[in-house]
Amino acid sequence: MTTAPLFQRVALIGFGLIGGSIARAARAKGLASEIVTTARSPKTRARVAELGIVDRVVETNVEAVKDADLVILCIPVGACGPVAKEIAPYLKPGAIISDVGSVKGAVVRDMAPHLPAGVHFVPAHPVAGTEHSGPDSGFPELFINRWCILTPPEGTDAAAVDKLRAFWTAIGAKVETMTPDHHDLVLAITSHLPHLIAYTIVGTADELGEVTSSEVMKFSAGGFRDFTRIAASDPTMWRDVFLNNKDAVLEMLGTFNEDLSKLTRAMRRGDGEALFDHFTRTRAIRRGIVEIGQDSAAPDFGRLSAATPKKP
Amino acid sequence: MTTAPLFQRVALIGFGLIGGSIARAARAKGLASEIVTTARSPKTRARVAELGIVDRVVETNVEAVKDADLVILCIPVGACGPVAKEIAPYLKPGAIISDVGSVKGAVVRDMAPHLPAGVHFVPAHPVAGTEHSGPDSGFPELFINRWCILTPPEGTDAAAVDKLRAFWTAIGAKVETMTPDHHDLVLAITSHLPHLIAYTIVGTADELGEVTSSEVMKFSAGGFRDFTRIAASDPTMWRDVFLNNKDAVLEMLGTFNEDLSKLTRAMRRGDGEALFDHFTRTRAIRRGIVEIGQDSAAPDFGRLSAATPKKP
Repeated sequence: MTTAPLFQRVALIGFGLIGGSIARAARAKGLASEIVTTARSPKTRARVAELGIVDRVVETNVEAVKDADLVILCIPVGACGPVAKEIAPYLKPGAIISDVGSVKGAVVRDMAPHLPAGVHFVPAHPVAGTEHSGPDSGFPELFINRWCILTPPEGTDAAAVDKLRAFWTAIGAKVETMTPDHHDLVLAITSHLPHLIAYTIVGTADELGEVTSSEVMKFSAGGFRDFTRIAASDPTMWRDVFLNNKDAVLEMLGTFNEDLSKLTRAMRRGDGEALFDHFTRTRAIRRGIVEIGQDSAAPDFGRLSAATPKKP
Repeated sequence: MTTAPLFQRVALIGFGLIGGSIARAARAKGLASEIVTTARSPKTRARVAELGIVDRVVETNVEAVKDADLVILCIPVGACGPVAKEIAPYLKPGAIISDVGSVKGAVVRDMAPHLPAGVHFVPAHPVAGTEHSGPDSGFPELFINRWCILTPPEGTDAAAVDKLRAFWTAIGAKVETMTPDHHDLVLAITSHLPHLIAYTIVGTADELGEVTSSEVMKFSAGGFRDFTRIAASDPTMWRDVFLNNKDAVLEMLGTFNEDLSKLTRAMRRGDGEALFDHFTRTRAIRRGIVEIGQDSAAPDFGRLSAATPKKP
């Protein structure tokens, strides 16, 4: 189903997993009369041109934003400030400027000072992704039934917020609004800390003397492989997340470490009841996530049907 | 494809995810002339009878093992010792006694002293599972392309080991042999520590003051939901794993904590290069696991196709 275009020209700065998925979804829904994109490397630009999803691939960000009604920065959080500074003088008055960064406080801090008075800054974070990256990794269904969090600064034009909300809704997302600081706390526990821990344990397993890497990989179906998926996420993106949401992640990490000590103590003391009670409680949380449609109810995330032959 | 029965009578003590999957797979492959099972609760026994997968459901373990050529304990690790003691006098001379426990040192310690000289004790651990449990959770493909680790005590009859190997191979598993102690170290890092950490962080997220449980669930697609799957595993089974593989888990936990401190320090000091290097290294491990066929290459484990509509 396509709808009337919401925007004349949409400019995407960056065409990785998120930028590429927005382009594919917006194209499929007919949300923009024209989609322009830029990519940093000549190789990626050539690939994007070849894919034929967008109307134009341009070399510079300045050229991309010219006459655009909606500009979305789909780049690592650490690059948002410099790019905002670069494009600011060329933004069309009345345009909406947004991003897709996993950290919002730092993005607002870095971008807002550069933006001219006549444009509407509506930071956004679609809580969706996969472990893959690059121009070929995107797909139009990525945002369906996922949340997109908007964090408009106080006083932002309500019509601009509504228009961006309509855009995300049209490509399948559910939209919620909150402050940048609250966003950063929520994501610290639901995304950043899980990534930090997954990155840690996968690194730990790779450097043991007593157990070889080959053994770790062979016997990973006992649980470890679940961690490797998120520890395979884009390194640049995640470096920037941790550098830019340090305080909230450290706060959540403090609580996590206390809780890990408690469970460790129960194990050391042989307190089976404490372990059992904890494990029963966490099971209920999984059930809640499946019930609200934020994960698959199929065993093993449904990976059995994706990976193994149907019949022995 | 069915083969000639390897065993006349197979007795399964317990009909949960693993016992139920063994029954289904052995039945599908025609590996036993008769499969007898027991289950602790009347409710489960009634359900198993209703399912019609096994030839007989009996009330007592003693009755189940009578005249069985292969007895497999498919029960939590902590229950193996008492059950071995209970069934020992009734085992058929020459029978093979095995289990499926995730810890091997403790199982050997608890079971071996009870077993009579005339039977062959071949402990086993199929490294496979899902977050579901109970008599309906099993399926015949569970072990396909997964590893089953045998840890026969020194001096075990080679023909008995070969026969159990043939059984596991016939239901799709790849079989490897190692010592109980080495098994427990390997599993501590590939399975037990990942579970401990997942159980911890899911508990942490559930008890925060600043972020509600409802927010945690809504925005879980950013990474958290991957942890909830393994934190939904059977509480009794996992209580017993941690009580019985304490030393190896504590050793791995020590290394994990050191590594977590290192990454935390890099984050606190703003050392982007150290973070980037670490994140690049862990990505390679994921690739290795996918390459050897121990996980799906599909984005998000393939859960997208399992959970979301194909077309918007």
